[in-house]
Amino acid sequence: MTKIQKAACIGGGVIGGAWAARFVLAGIDTAMYDPHPEAERIIGEVMANAERAYSLLTAAPLPPKGKLTFYKTVEEAVAGADWIQESVPERIDLKRNVITQIDAAADPKALIGSSTSGIMPTELQRDMKHPERMFVAHPYNPVYLLPLAELVGGQKTSPAVLEEAKAKLAPIGMKGVILKKEIEAFVGDRLLEAVWREGLWLIQDDICDTETLDDVIRYSFGMRWAQMGMFETYRIAGGEAGMRHFIAQFGPCLSWPWTKLMDVVDLTDELVDKIASQSDAQSGAYGFRELERIRDENLVGIMQTLKGSNGGQGWGSGKLLAEFEAHLWKNAPKPAAPDLSQPIRLLDLKVQPSWVDYNGHMTEFRYTQCFADSADALLRLIGADMAYVEAGHSYYTVENHVRLLAECKLGESLYTKGQILPCDGKKLHTFMSLYRVSDDTMVATCEHLMLHVSSSESKSVPPLPEVMEKLQPLIDAHAKLPLPEGAGRSVGQKK
Amino acid sequence: MTKIQKAACIGGGVIGGAWAARFVLAGIDTAMYDPHPEAERIIGEVMANAERAYSLLTAAPLPPKGKLTFYKTVEEAVAGADWIQESVPERIDLKRNVITQIDAAADPKALIGSSTSGIMPTELQRDMKHPERMFVAHPYNPVYLLPLAELVGGQKTSPAVLEEAKAKLAPIGMKGVILKKEIEAFVGDRLLEAVWREGLWLIQDDICDTETLDDVIRYSFGMRWAQMGMFETYRIAGGEAGMRHFIAQFGPCLSWPWTKLMDVVDLTDELVDKIASQSDAQSGAYGFRELERIRDENLVGIMQTLKGSNGGQGWGSGKLLAEFEAHLWKNAPKPAAPDLSQPIRLLDLKVQPSWVDYNGHMTEFRYTQCFADSADALLRLIGADMAYVEAGHSYYTVENHVRLLAECKLGESLYTKGQILPCDGKKLHTFMSLYRVSDDTMVATCEHLMLHVSSSESKSVPPLPEVMEKLQPLIDAHAKLPLPEGAGRSVGQKK
Repeated sequence: MTKIQKAACIGGGVIGGAWAARFVLAGIDTAMYDPHPEAERIIGEVMANAERAYSLLTAAPLPPKGKLTFYKTVEEAVAGADWIQESVPERIDLKRNVITQIDAAADPKALIGSSTSGIMPTELQRDMKHPERMFVAHPYNPVYLLPLAELVGGQKTSPAVLEEAKAKLAPIGMKGVILKKEIEAFVGDRLLEAVWREGLWLIQDDICDTETLDDVIRYSFGMRWAQMGMFETYRIAGGEAGMRHFIAQFGPCLSWPWTKLMDVVDLTDELVDKIASQSDAQSGAYGFRELERIRDENLVGIMQTLKGSNGGQGWGSGKLLAEFEAHLWKNAPKPAAPDLSQPIRLLDLKVQPSWVDYNGHMTEFRYTQCFADSADALLRLIGADMAYVEAGHSYYTVENHVRLLAECKLGESLYTKGQILPCDGKKLHTFMSLYRVSDDTMVATCEHLMLHVSSSESKSVPPLPEVMEKLQPLIDAHAKLPLPEGAGRSVGQKK
Repeated sequence: MTKIQKAACIGGGVIGGAWAARFVLAGIDTAMYDPHPEAERIIGEVMANAERAYSLLTAAPLPPKGKLTFYKTVEEAVAGADWIQESVPERIDLKRNVITQIDAAADPKALIGSSTSGIMPTELQRDMKHPERMFVAHPYNPVYLLPLAELVGGQKTSPAVLEEAKAKLAPIGMKGVILKKEIEAFVGDRLLEAVWREGLWLIQDDICDTETLDDVIRYSFGMRWAQMGMFETYRIAGGEAGMRHFIAQFGPCLSWPWTKLMDVVDLTDELVDKIASQSDAQSGAYGFRELERIRDENLVGIMQTLKGSNGGQGWGSGKLLAEFEAHLWKNAPKPAAPDLSQPIRLLDLKVQPSWVDYNGHMTEFRYTQCFADSADALLRLIGADMAYVEAGHSYYTVENHVRLLAECKLGESLYTKGQILPCDGKKLHTFMSLYRVSDDTMVATCEHLMLHVSSSESKSVPPLPEVMEKLQPLIDAHAKLPLPEGAGRSVGQKK
């Protein structure tokens, strides 16, 4: 993937700060310019949210964080950047002036994206010297989790620049979607605006309150739209008769009486009061930060669920997450040769929302997951990685014996260490331990046995030489370690 | 919960058939009237989809299925029913006539819901003798999974009837949402219609194609709306400043230039062709049944994810699923006294979409999950259930030793059996085995050790007498069984 070398964010806040978090967490040094007196605090909060969300989202190895530097002028911030993202308030003159200023100071080849949710790029690039590299890259809140960026070019934007922008967004986990033509509010906010107008009428006319309206969305088509959009959903609704049939039967509704409500609602003080107080009744039991946390955990969970969809191939945002993780793994530095004289540190983990029971404690089988993932980490270390599996060999787990020694709470950071027990490599016999990062308490152990198999022959065979070359020194070195407490024991056996 | 005693579905098809599936799977005898020559085949297919989806959705004990009976007249079908659901084609005269016919034949106290997605109940109840018990209960496709029913009363509908309908939907896993006033298309289809109109313009004007539009939805606000609706999402977007601030700043957009597109698009043959061919390009690689399966698995996954949200308390449709499951457990028949002379059958399971790896095989830690859930089933059997836990006592797992003997595939049906090994009950030592339903092959075993604890004292104590009374006979009876092959073994130990 084409990687951004240095990013600059002009304008922080919830949107600009989250762009910065995307860049920094993908290992990209990022310059920030924001004159707001509390910019550093606000961006720091967004960054903390993003880091928390990422730690729950993926166990793939994020690169070392990029450096975030605050500058006092636009000119200093954009110096040397190859992606500059403008996220200043939504006023056309302000945005145009800032973009013109960026253009004058930046490398003429640097890409300049605007976070505007409505203004056409032709308007924004009007006064630029190098307008061909300017486009809209419109993201969605929370930008650090939702992967979409609508890419929209203006009259002077080079089509190649949009393709380049799309390619550069992939390594930061984002899905760039190129629109064919510019239009005010682009595609997403067009659709949102339509629902918003309709929703305001429903509240204004007392058809329902805000909670009911939200329930109508989230207990029905909201779930459909999280994984397929509108057209693909309706394609299924057409059933065997297909899409053409579906549209034809839906057509007449377009002129049914409710089109009378397509006027613009008048946003009076009374209506604003009504919405605000209904919203308090609906969501006031949760603080803003609490709602934000719940939303982020839900989004993480949905993306993780969709990652396993379609027989493990992934679907929608989950497929994108899998691609992002594959990219992270591919670009992870080769692990330093481990100190063979000690058990090897295998994996760093965090207790995920879906791992806890109603008490908030990690549930039994998730301990096994920690160890199964750690065994995978060991396999990668000896070269029995995805490529090895695809070429027809792999290790299958035949037994595991887990002892649960202490509880783990949601969000707690954990790590595992592993020791190879005496074995021939065709059998891979290990003893792993799970620890809390905070105080190095051992919270669980696992004695684990894998068997090396040939997938085509469906039988156990010795590992290929390239794996044994890495494994044998480990077996030999660990043969000198004392047997860990608990190894070789049966369930319930006294020490 | 108030339970429906007997249901009648007038009109089958995708909507009526799925209502029937909801009733039947909740244990309610259901009468079906549909004059379509292929009605039985179509309803059978919907029923099969529903059963597959339910088996993935929940491990809670569904009651024995209700009986589905086809009748040749409306009069026969509605006889004795206390909930009658009308799902005939969306033509006002047809619906009104059918509902008037139902009214004349049904018990005057029976509730009559219409599945109409747009017609006002006042129009439908016009000619009824007992109109007070008629209302709209508008569901969303796929009705067997999406829980929403919009409940809308007409001028003659009794408000108490809407509350009764809402109460009766809960035991079939549905969320009844009562609207304050009737309006054409109610709330959900109002919002959908707004997006549909806007979407048609975007396709017509070549701003994007159907795939791009769908991607814009599902990589962004679709995921937001699956778990919070529009108002709660925007409440967060308002940040510390709150909802009032958010609306005030959004207000001006309402009169921005794109409101010009609020005309109704003309659904020409050309536009229909364009949409149908773009949809083929987007989704044609998947057949209709395949898309349906992927959609259902994704919806199941999203609801299961949300069930674990908010620190295990559940959120939105996931909270509803948890409530539905609690209802199922509460109403499950007490298990028959097991045959103590044999290992006890503990649990029936199905390999879930989220349980398989990229090869389509059940992954290591899900075997442990099968056994952990089976241990919970054993605990319920001896009275150490949720109420016991809430009263301050419970069993904690301290060790498990799992042997994986064979692969399991997505959707495969499995069951577990368990034997108590010699123990005092304060320690609960068991040996469980996992089998395939198809051929009774043993696919895994688990030796498992739990410890009885007092939550308040945070220490191990003997079980309360009511648990020991049930457990001791089991311990005594199983002491006479031979020790299972593999019990007492350490990892890798030879037979």
